[in-house]
Amino acid sequence: MKSSMGRVERDSIGEVMLPHHALWGVQTQRALENFPITGIPISHYPELVVALAQVKRACAQTNADLGVLARDKAEAITAACDAIIAGDHHAAFCVDVMQGGAGTSTNMNANEVIANLALQAMGHDHGAYRHLHPNDDVNRSQSTNDVYPTAIRLATLSYAETLLSSLSTLVEAFRAKGEAFAHVQKVGRTQLQDAVPMTLGQEFHGFATTLAEDIDRLRDLGRLLTEVNLGGTAIGTRINTPDGYAAAVVDALSKVTGRDLTPASDLIEASSDLGGFVMYSSALKRVVIKLSKICNDLRLLSSGPRAGLGEITLPPAQAGSSIMPGKVNPVIPEVVNQICFQAIGNDLTVTMAAEAGQLQLNAMEPVIFYKVMETMTTLTGGMDVLTTRCVQGITANEARCAELLEGSLVLATLLAPVVGYDAAARLSKTALTDGITLREACSKVGLDAGALGLA
Amino acid sequence: MKSSMGRVERDSIGEVMLPHHALWGVQTQRALENFPITGIPISHYPELVVALAQVKRACAQTNADLGVLARDKAEAITAACDAIIAGDHHAAFCVDVMQGGAGTSTNMNANEVIANLALQAMGHDHGAYRHLHPNDDVNRSQSTNDVYPTAIRLATLSYAETLLSSLSTLVEAFRAKGEAFAHVQKVGRTQLQDAVPMTLGQEFHGFATTLAEDIDRLRDLGRLLTEVNLGGTAIGTRINTPDGYAAAVVDALSKVTGRDLTPASDLIEASSDLGGFVMYSSALKRVVIKLSKICNDLRLLSSGPRAGLGEITLPPAQAGSSIMPGKVNPVIPEVVNQICFQAIGNDLTVTMAAEAGQLQLNAMEPVIFYKVMETMTTLTGGMDVLTTRCVQGITANEARCAELLEGSLVLATLLAPVVGYDAAARLSKTALTDGITLREACSKVGLDAGALGLA
Amino acid sequence: MKSSMGRVERDSIGEVMLPHHALWGVQTQRALENFPITGIPISHYPELVVALAQVKRACAQTNADLGVLARDKAEAITAACDAIIAGDHHAAFCVDVMQGGAGTSTNMNANEVIANLALQAMGHDHGAYRHLHPNDDVNRSQSTNDVYPTAIRLATLSYAETLLSSLSTLVEAFRAKGEAFAHVQKVGRTQLQDAVPMTLGQEFHGFATTLAEDIDRLRDLGRLLTEVNLGGTAIGTRINTPDGYAAAVVDALSKVTGRDLTPASDLIEASSDLGGFVMYSSALKRVVIKLSKICNDLRLLSSGPRAGLGEITLPPAQAGSSIMPGKVNPVIPEVVNQICFQAIGNDLTVTMAAEAGQLQLNAMEPVIFYKVMETMTTLTGGMDVLTTRCVQGITANEARCAELLEGSLVLATLLAPVVGYDAAARLSKTALTDGITLREACSKVGLDAGALGLA
Amino acid sequence: MKSSMGRVERDSIGEVMLPHHALWGVQTQRALENFPITGIPISHYPELVVALAQVKRACAQTNADLGVLARDKAEAITAACDAIIAGDHHAAFCVDVMQGGAGTSTNMNANEVIANLALQAMGHDHGAYRHLHPNDDVNRSQSTNDVYPTAIRLATLSYAETLLSSLSTLVEAFRAKGEAFAHVQKVGRTQLQDAVPMTLGQEFHGFATTLAEDIDRLRDLGRLLTEVNLGGTAIGTRINTPDGYAAAVVDALSKVTGRDLTPASDLIEASSDLGGFVMYSSALKRVVIKLSKICNDLRLLSSGPRAGLGEITLPPAQAGSSIMPGKVNPVIPEVVNQICFQAIGNDLTVTMAAEAGQLQLNAMEPVIFYKVMETMTTLTGGMDVLTTRCVQGITANEARCAELLEGSLVLATLLAPVVGYDAAARLSKTALTDGITLREACSKVGLDAGALGLA
Repeated sequence: MKSSMGRVERDSIGEVMLPHHALWGVQTQRALENFPITGIPISHYPELVVALAQVKRACAQTNADLGVLARDKAEAITAACDAIIAGDHHAAFCVDVMQGGAGTSTNMNANEVIANLALQAMGHDHGAYRHLHPNDDVNRSQSTNDVYPTAIRLATLSYAETLLSSLSTLVEAFRAKGEAFAHVQKVGRTQLQDAVPMTLGQEFHGFATTLAEDIDRLRDLGRLLTEVNLGGTAIGTRINTPDGYAAAVVDALSKVTGRDLTPASDLIEASSDLGGFVMYSSALKRVVIKLSKICNDLRLLSSGPRAGLGEITLPPAQAGSSIMPGKVNPVIPEVVNQICFQAIGNDLTVTMAAEAGQLQLNAMEPVIFYKVMETMTTLTGGMDVLTTRCVQGITANEARCAELLEGSLVLATLLAPVVGYDAAARLSKTALTDGITLREACSKVGLDAGALGLA
Repeated sequence: MKSSMGRVERDSIGEVMLPHHALWGVQTQRALENFPITGIPISHYPELVVALAQVKRACAQTNADLGVLARDKAEAITAACDAIIAGDHHAAFCVDVMQGGAGTSTNMNANEVIANLALQAMGHDHGAYRHLHPNDDVNRSQSTNDVYPTAIRLATLSYAETLLSSLSTLVEAFRAKGEAFAHVQKVGRTQLQDAVPMTLGQEFHGFATTLAEDIDRLRDLGRLLTEVNLGGTAIGTRINTPDGYAAAVVDALSKVTGRDLTPASDLIEASSDLGGFVMYSSALKRVVIKLSKICNDLRLLSSGPRAGLGEITLPPAQAGSSIMPGKVNPVIPEVVNQICFQAIGNDLTVTMAAEAGQLQLNAMEPVIFYKVMETMTTLTGGMDVLTTRCVQGITANEARCAELLEGSLVLATLLAPVVGYDAAARLSKTALTDGITLREACSKVGLDAGALGLA
Repeated sequence: MKSSMGRVERDSIGEVMLPHHALWGVQTQRALENFPITGIPISHYPELVVALAQVKRACAQTNADLGVLARDKAEAITAACDAIIAGDHHAAFCVDVMQGGAGTSTNMNANEVIANLALQAMGHDHGAYRHLHPNDDVNRSQSTNDVYPTAIRLATLSYAETLLSSLSTLVEAFRAKGEAFAHVQKVGRTQLQDAVPMTLGQEFHGFATTLAEDIDRLRDLGRLLTEVNLGGTAIGTRINTPDGYAAAVVDALSKVTGRDLTPASDLIEASSDLGGFVMYSSALKRVVIKLSKICNDLRLLSSGPRAGLGEITLPPAQAGSSIMPGKVNPVIPEVVNQICFQAIGNDLTVTMAAEAGQLQLNAMEPVIFYKVMETMTTLTGGMDVLTTRCVQGITANEARCAELLEGSLVLATLLAPVVGYDAAARLSKTALTDGITLREACSKVGLDAGALGLA
Repeated sequence: MKSSMGRVERDSIGEVMLPHHALWGVQTQRALENFPITGIPISHYPELVVALAQVKRACAQTNADLGVLARDKAEAITAACDAIIAGDHHAAFCVDVMQGGAGTSTNMNANEVIANLALQAMGHDHGAYRHLHPNDDVNRSQSTNDVYPTAIRLATLSYAETLLSSLSTLVEAFRAKGEAFAHVQKVGRTQLQDAVPMTLGQEFHGFATTLAEDIDRLRDLGRLLTEVNLGGTAIGTRINTPDGYAAAVVDALSKVTGRDLTPASDLIEASSDLGGFVMYSSALKRVVIKLSKICNDLRLLSSGPRAGLGEITLPPAQAGSSIMPGKVNPVIPEVVNQICFQAIGNDLTVTMAAEAGQLQLNAMEPVIFYKVMETMTTLTGGMDVLTTRCVQGITANEARCAELLEGSLVLATLLAPVVGYDAAARLSKTALTDGITLREACSKVGLDAGALGLA
């Protein structure tokens, strides 16, 4: 039905007016009206749109193979999905990332856009659902409750690839600095107090090591996300699916995506549990805790330029101050710190949403998806600028490192095994109180520092 | 300097190329390159853009009054600010909401856009800063460290007005239902177990009461945000401001904004402390905790339609399921729950960012601003749909309420003062075990329930 | 009933054996068996025990006045409560702080101990409840749901007094140092980079100011806790209370406690809402965020002794290292940081527990109480040692402050209003690159630094 | 040195008085005075005390083997450690769990107790450290910075065994109920709305499945904790250790503990990173999110007894109310919910503490240890009572399940593939509006429900 104002569609609640040529239908339109929340449409995360089309494509093919969907309908649906996978029509995926209904609006948005694209290809008008129906055909043998979690798993895996690539590049940048600074002797510090000697290379190598471990961890946990509940439909009982569907559709989806997906062993459990996302979000939290600590260290080590530690210099990224001329601030580590704080807050949102599951479903999946995606994409962006605009350009202030080491009392530790802890402590205290070197303090009490092992 | 590719500007780091006609300058451009993080520009929050212009206007006027800025420059700046306050040129406020540098990029974005607008009005080319300079003139007597926190305070106060208006409307909607349902007797429940009788009106009235309290609380705490550190410049020592400036500029800003602003009593402290935002974010958290609990209750009370509590019916907002025909889900309360979880996560981000302040400044202000704004705007959106698409359309299922009350054992409590707690407990247990009413259980042991006060 | 093994009591579930001479009864004993969780009994927080006795005393007197409790019973109960308020019998308050049942076990523990003390005074055996019953007499006109929240409000107010006293002393210690260090010029730092000059006194004064603000805030919010729901009984409908009871009992409790308590305006709402605790916990979070930032600053400013900032020296509290002789670490600020992190985690627990309220009650009150108390008592302990073992003994390293200030480029900001931001930035960059002072950089380009305002 | 008041010891700060016969020394005593925070001594977690003794034993033996500790001293130390491992002298481990100094006080407490026990065995007085010194001998080749993290890893692994055993028993209890309830047909619910049919057995089986997955996850992550940094000493550079020590001491510790421990690959990194604890805490968070959701479900499914879902009955654990006779509340699931909320708050504390590491060390380790231990022990306690006092006694209310299923409209989903989604939705709406069954709604429009597949 059309009017001068637009197209009219109806559902069991009543009629709604759609914009002319809208690829979406009544249920998407209701969602647009129900959820004017963030202004961010799901197409902000294109990998989700692609994943939805991949799922719909796999389902259509499986349905056709099992005889519950006409072959011509399946082909029209497949062609529509292929266009979306190729990047077309994403703007029609317009519902808000924040939505009630456990993802039903997202799933219906996909069903309706695919149905209308297929109808169009079959020579029918948009909305002529008697020829091909969003629910009866595109959503055949499916429920939001298996489609949506499956799609967000796939999207997460896609974003994970970019993120891991950025993380690897960052690790390499730290490792390269670790090698470049291997010869720079400096004071190691514990509890911000001068402790014992080390090299700047060891410090940067440590940054590389700690982040590299997380690549493994994220890969391990990513594997948990390849277990999908597609085929379980509404609550995992496989209601309204033909025999053999569940196994077949996961196979088909593996082919479409090129991923090695497996069906969940307990589909009932898999329908309400989001443990995989909780764990993945936690692993991201682990990364950002480390990254935030590293950025704190970079800011601390580069503090100054004159009245701070000043052991390293970060490359200038922009003028630091609107009032203080010449000031250069560590703006790149600072933005990464903030991305990390956001990620930790997002993990809490995920935690609360995951805990709020009830009985056979967790209705809070959309916010879980949104926040995990937000964390992943901003973290990737942050790591990229950290690598290219900060770490790769860091220089060591060797003279400063040497000067601080020389003036310090960190060699007292070497004395302890020789003169005993208590005597060494007294020597250190003497040096500090009298403003002299440890070697001088040894001399004062008649000890030969050289013989004791002090350089 | 111009080229076929765009305009060239330079700073102490070097040259950058700007798009032709860009209203911003070199420092904004560097920020665009340094912070490709969220894709959300600061203009996503127009009240911040307006607030920045208000601050710049007040400063220019005060500088002119105190003789440190030429009157013609001040007038050009003022005109530029007025245009921005009126809503023009917001697209030029393009730096990412997530940025390092404690807001320097936001402040410089404002300085540069205002300078270029003023230059244009004075007949000069964009970028001809020798005639009117973003730092020397627009930013005169200012630092990011006083401008930015002041602007985000003003923006928060503006968003607070909309939020409080939405909250008040929601309170009224609950209050109206409280009155409409005043006669509906029902089972009160504690710990999800049948407890004692109450009315549905009391239940909804309670929702109104608890949220109404927060209106007062948010107003109280909003007052804390009217204390600004403008005039403190870099770290609160008022460096580079003329005599009398600090008091005068806050007066001027009060006039521009129509708010009753006061200068911070300890400008040093005010430069690094974000306690006001922490507290405001906490107050928002208090609201969402209540709102989430209320949404949980609405979903619980409307559970069913047949196999749940079913005491109320929420108006249908959209088809509930892609596979289960006729299913209507509580999608509006669900999206509000998710908004609440996001707000709690955001409060954690604010907490961590606030804790990360160091020495004379908190460099993490941008994420604090961003997350508080995100919470406020999405919460406002959520409360609006909750009011109009859910609460106002709720109906009571009186017959169901009566049926559940009648079948329950909640009157056992009334027996206790008469027969004693232990005997009443035994009667209740008998009724439950034997599947009879409390009245019947009384009869079984020869008690006259009517005489005991049971209806 | 007694046996050689102990005393037997029974309830509707069956019989239980109690230790001989146990002051508690069957319901406490069941709680001991049901909740072997933390090993920390409620008597760990003596102010809660006192508060429970105060509530029971006020109720007994009001019940007697209104004729629903025999005067002799009321007197026996009152005497028992007075002993407990005086500090006796606290060991009998033995249920775990972590318990299900919304505090019922705590309330019953109080009812049973008071009943048995009263029975003992009346010449009866423990457990002879036909003479005076824990529920029918001690708990007369009460429910856990009004007694328990009222008692925890009172306990919180008591702990708040100690906490505020500790906080005030800490503020004074910082203020005193602010005065003592008023003459010490130093480099002010933003984003850990040298910014503009300030005094060490201003820095410490800022610490005092920011914490002093929280004294006001905690006092304000403490007032919210003086609104109690006593008299609402099970769900706020006042079931099983005599006419006039609600107002009278709050009056009586005000007299017993010496506090100006008021009845909640909406008792239904007050029964399930814990907004007051949420807000109070948030205010504690605000304090710890500031305190953690201050402790971070103290550790940073005292970093060294040779290879750090070294502007101040913290008094040595203990040997810093088991391997590094002479090392002295900032252990007091470090323990305060950890107390702060615990408090922030506890606030999250409170948040989740508050959100988990359902319908007419929040069953998660015990963990809310426990975590707020834990935060308050550890924070008080931490602030006390911070004052006496750290802040009061801090000394300024004036020579170091002067040396860092002299070598820095922080006076470039003063140049900007004279030579312009861009020129000043170039001078600063020259000084830094060439390793010379700002004055020398001026000379190089023919400027007279003295005339420009540089000292 | 002894006096009538006690024993006097001294360190570089000065003299302190110890209680007579105290097994600890000056550094422990200073810690007692510096950290009066929680009142909970480290001996509250006996597995930590045992782990410390195991580490000290392994170090002493390795030192003796490598010739840097006299054999007789090593033997005396070994004997002292064996006594502690056997459970003796734990009360002497008295420093507060919450302490500054990155665990130095804990390590020194161990060094001093072991030294004094060894001295005693060698026939010397307590405190006669010239014969055997806490630092020079017991702590030989060690630093708090490698001893403490190693010991807390070992303690965590020990507590993990108990926890996994409790979790396995809980899984079994759910699995048994899954089998016992396999025949009970009921309404499956999504978003608290009636969805499609399922069995109660499937629901409980799902609980077992989801928790069982976490056993694997915890085991996997536990393996990360077997990588220790012992041998790295102060900052991972192995300062003050003899050649070959690092590998040998980890071997020795593997033998003492019976665990397959490995040395960290990058000792510098391992000294400051607590990623393993972050991840383990996250895995515990994942468990409690699931457990909290399950407890929420148990409370929901058992809501009633008359005016709730009432599909299952939990065994009564105690009288539910002080005012409502006969009320039985789900107190066991409630306490578990609270334990879960505490665990989530604790994970945040761990997160913040982990992020607060600086340069070569994380000084916040003690609170990380404390909170992880608190979570593990309370969670173990909670799961034990959940198994024995709740899950094992749950009964199904079969008649209620059948009645709710029969009255529901959940078979509408089966109609959709036959009559189409839109027609099925209309039938469902008709049934609901008219208060009839789905079968009757079919008849009304001339459809034969039986033929359509409705039972």
